[in-house]
Amino acid sequence: MALYVQKFGGTSVGSVERIKAVADKVKRFRDDGHQVVVVVSAMSGETNRLIELAGQINDEPTPREMDMLVSTGEQVTISLLAMALQKLGVPATSYTGAQVGIQTDSAHTKARIQRIETNDLRDDLDEGKVVVVAGFQGVDEEGNITTLGRGGSDTTGVALAAALKADECQIYTDVDGVYTTDPRVCSKAQRLETITVEEMLELASLGSKVLQIRAVEFAGKYNVPLRVLSSFEDGPGTLIVAESDEEEDSMEEPLISGIAFTANEAKLTLLNTPDVPGVASRILGPIADGNIEVDMIVQNVAPAGDYTDFTFTVAKGDYKQTMKILKDQVIPDLGGGELRGDDNIAKVSLVGVGMRSHAGVAAKMFRTLAEENINIRMVSTSEIKISVVIDEKQMELAVRALHKAFGLDKDSVESE
Amino acid sequence: MALYVQKFGGTSVGSVERIKAVADKVKRFRDDGHQVVVVVSAMSGETNRLIELAGQINDEPTPREMDMLVSTGEQVTISLLAMALQKLGVPATSYTGAQVGIQTDSAHTKARIQRIETNDLRDDLDEGKVVVVAGFQGVDEEGNITTLGRGGSDTTGVALAAALKADECQIYTDVDGVYTTDPRVCSKAQRLETITVEEMLELASLGSKVLQIRAVEFAGKYNVPLRVLSSFEDGPGTLIVAESDEEEDSMEEPLISGIAFTANEAKLTLLNTPDVPGVASRILGPIADGNIEVDMIVQNVAPAGDYTDFTFTVAKGDYKQTMKILKDQVIPDLGGGELRGDDNIAKVSLVGVGMRSHAGVAAKMFRTLAEENINIRMVSTSEIKISVVIDEKQMELAVRALHKAFGLDKDSVESE
Repeated sequence: MALYVQKFGGTSVGSVERIKAVADKVKRFRDDGHQVVVVVSAMSGETNRLIELAGQINDEPTPREMDMLVSTGEQVTISLLAMALQKLGVPATSYTGAQVGIQTDSAHTKARIQRIETNDLRDDLDEGKVVVVAGFQGVDEEGNITTLGRGGSDTTGVALAAALKADECQIYTDVDGVYTTDPRVCSKAQRLETITVEEMLELASLGSKVLQIRAVEFAGKYNVPLRVLSSFEDGPGTLIVAESDEEEDSMEEPLISGIAFTANEAKLTLLNTPDVPGVASRILGPIADGNIEVDMIVQNVAPAGDYTDFTFTVAKGDYKQTMKILKDQVIPDLGGGELRGDDNIAKVSLVGVGMRSHAGVAAKMFRTLAEENINIRMVSTSEIKISVVIDEKQMELAVRALHKAFGLDKDSVESE
Repeated sequence: MALYVQKFGGTSVGSVERIKAVADKVKRFRDDGHQVVVVVSAMSGETNRLIELAGQINDEPTPREMDMLVSTGEQVTISLLAMALQKLGVPATSYTGAQVGIQTDSAHTKARIQRIETNDLRDDLDEGKVVVVAGFQGVDEEGNITTLGRGGSDTTGVALAAALKADECQIYTDVDGVYTTDPRVCSKAQRLETITVEEMLELASLGSKVLQIRAVEFAGKYNVPLRVLSSFEDGPGTLIVAESDEEEDSMEEPLISGIAFTANEAKLTLLNTPDVPGVASRILGPIADGNIEVDMIVQNVAPAGDYTDFTFTVAKGDYKQTMKILKDQVIPDLGGGELRGDDNIAKVSLVGVGMRSHAGVAAKMFRTLAEENINIRMVSTSEIKISVVIDEKQMELAVRALHKAFGLDKDSVESE
């Protein structure tokens, strides 16, 4: 007998029929003798419907009231799923985040889980019940309803799995696993059997939106085996494992696990900025104050030594505001500098724990791109990732060329 | 400075525009220096939408899960109304029934309030906030969400007013007060300035569905001044007062305050039943066991003395099942009796505290009906009420004739 925490997202519970299908799936696990805790999101479209209602009333609603409002979405789903399970003869009880005791801080709309009470859940499971928990929501110390931010249901699932010491946390989605890259761009992309937490984190933050990044962090921190599977088809999905296990299991580490890419960034450069102490923080401070997140950062010292070039990327939606902050605040403050910007860029990243111990990944990446006449405009690296910025219109070409060059293509692997 | 509890029903908060209108109204009270607690129902249509969703999944959902589901309706409204108030610059906080501490028993879908914690509400009010509370819902000792049954938002409002010792509980509805009878049937019906709790109870239970009967009982028991007003027009509405005040204020008590009527009952008669001890309970016991509520009861002893005729009324929807219980269980048990039934009946009732001290109300009622050739098929009386059962098709004629005869017509009062 195993204990599974199974999380179903908004699309998986998006209609009465799909809720019934989820109940069928849960019942099969229970019939096999397993204990199941189910975490569900709001029915797809519901959260947006509620946000739109709020928007018609107040363009700046307080976060507390937004949480009060949108948390009803999951509450509807948990009761409907419990009813669907009961209809199949499966005893089931639903709980809101507050009822289950998912204690969070008071950062409404982006709260963080602090602890979870599991006594009641354990009692229910021991009585043979399936427990259905509202994802995405919790309660702060004063009893206010909080939400974990969009996608927070994944985090609820992993946190519950950690608190209950579940055998596996299964995240059901509309894809059947984690792929070497986006199959819509590269038809030869293939599903990975396993991937490490670290790799998954890099892939998630780089645009492969299979799992919420906080959920993966949580899974890594508390050693929760995490599996991504399809709600609609049977299949093993992709298991996200702690790195150590992986290294023991497979002697021949692939160099690269996946290729992430995004066209949703813009690049800004300050040329010939006086190289005074603390220049980086004087550039990025006002950006951060404007609540703009910076992704890649590259700084070169000019040959003369007293000027510097500073380049960074932000989300495309923040491009104009960032330009304005640099022009109005940063350049006057620094006493000079020339501003350049480009929002027609793409970032392509190779991710793999294998690259740590293998030289030459970067060289092979640059050579592959050069052979396709793709100009690299910015590079940044981490231990298990190399990212390049290129022209947006060359993004798909770059992904396909790299996918082939690093042996990720479906055919090349199967023929090996 | 007064403390008002204001309750707005589903129609009053049925759209974004109406929620904004409610916020405007609440703001006016607050601008006048009053403290306000607002109790709201689900937006009209929402509860039915949720019940229909449930019905598509499980034709017999557990009451606990139904409460979990439908309680989201009010939660949406409280957050939207709080946002609308905040948009107008009015500080406001919303609370679910559980959050405000409306403790109930565990009778899901028809729970009863046991106590209310008011400390947090007092603090909010003292800080100048408007408090918005979800009607219709509470929480049991184990933390399960409960609901008070349809229309329970009125009860929430009165219970909060009692707990907070509010100066007035104002129930905003789609009518502008309590009328002498239904204006749709009698165009000369007029709004009452005041009505006693007792009269209101008789009118409510007889089919004038302005207020939930439990709310009126509650108001009477805890001496909460209760006012019914229109959400859509300004006006004084109708004040529901404890009887004693009323008697002191007005020397000339009107005989009759209002005329209630319903066509939603059916009549059943057992003729020639052996008049054995306990016959009434042996007839009504099996009916009660079938969860069927009995309204009027009349028993006549036959001239011979050893047979009795027993007549009672039930809701029309329970007619067939009641017939079956009488035929299959009661008649065999009593060892005889002849069964008659009629579901084409109407009940018309005169209500008024004044009739206590005035003889002749019944005589005048019967004479008025006789003059219209309306045959009376059953009579029952209480201290402040006379009800007659007549043919359904003569109901409206009877109401109009009695309304005129007892001086309730708009013109007759105005000309006096």
